[in-house]
Amino acid sequence: MFALHPALAADTIEIVDWPLSKILLMDDATYPWLILVPARPGLTGLHELGPSDGQIMMDEIQRASGALKNLYKPDRINVAALGNVVEQLHVHVIARFTSDGAWPAPVWGAQPRRPYGGDALAEIRATLGASLKEYAP
Amino acid sequence: MFALHPALAADTIEIVDWPLSKILLMDDATYPWLILVPARPGLTGLHELGPSDGQIMMDEIQRASGALKNLYKPDRINVAALGNVVEQLHVHVIARFTSDGAWPAPVWGAQPRRPYGGDALAEIRATLGASLKEYAP
Repeated sequence: MFALHPALAADTIEIVDWPLSKILLMDDATYPWLILVPARPGLTGLHELGPSDGQIMMDEIQRASGALKNLYKPDRINVAALGNVVEQLHVHVIARFTSDGAWPAPVWGAQPRRPYGGDALAEIRATLGASLKEYAP
Repeated sequence: MFALHPALAADTIEIVDWPLSKILLMDDATYPWLILVPARPGLTGLHELGPSDGQIMMDEIQRASGALKNLYKPDRINVAALGNVVEQLHVHVIARFTSDGAWPAPVWGAQPRRPYGGDALAEIRATLGASLKEYAP
């Protein structure tokens, strides 16, 4: 049985379930930052996805990237599956700006997480919820 | 016309061409570190790959990961497409160990690049060349 890792659950808000992945919003107002977690038990790396799930994974990465690109017009989209800290397979899809505080470094460890306030969280949940439905597979 | 970005060419050694990507070895003896560069002109993000190339990309990421896993038995494989410094789309596939100097942080900016010496370079080129042919699509 798949269960979301508690460390991922603690730092994120669930937005929508796509065919393979749970789409989570990282609760960090510094960057528009999605995390895609394939809802399959026991995975730690992209190479452990079977060929069919691998194809869906890439499709969902591309759709999530497209949604962030369209909504936020970032300078770059960063995509990464690291798992050094939380081993459950999860894929970061992050909208980056040359003006963001970590640029051009990667975001991990660059700045303390800055949780959304209540109104800002409600707003981005609504915006992303609508957009990710539009970009749904 | 596709041409490898000079900054990528400067830091890497070409190992093999797969159907979509040039497979490069990062010249950094700290980690077994491949870089996959889809040989298509003008790309900066995974979402810009068409659906068919996106599928091949995931397949090549999985094969490169599998090859590193099989050869080096790492604790984790890190996969990332960042492009904050070199904008040409390139995908890092890195074998990570809990004993490596940057663990659990990402590798970028963690430690100065430590080029392979002549003999070590010849050895890893031969090892990877043989393995990546075996894992070829």
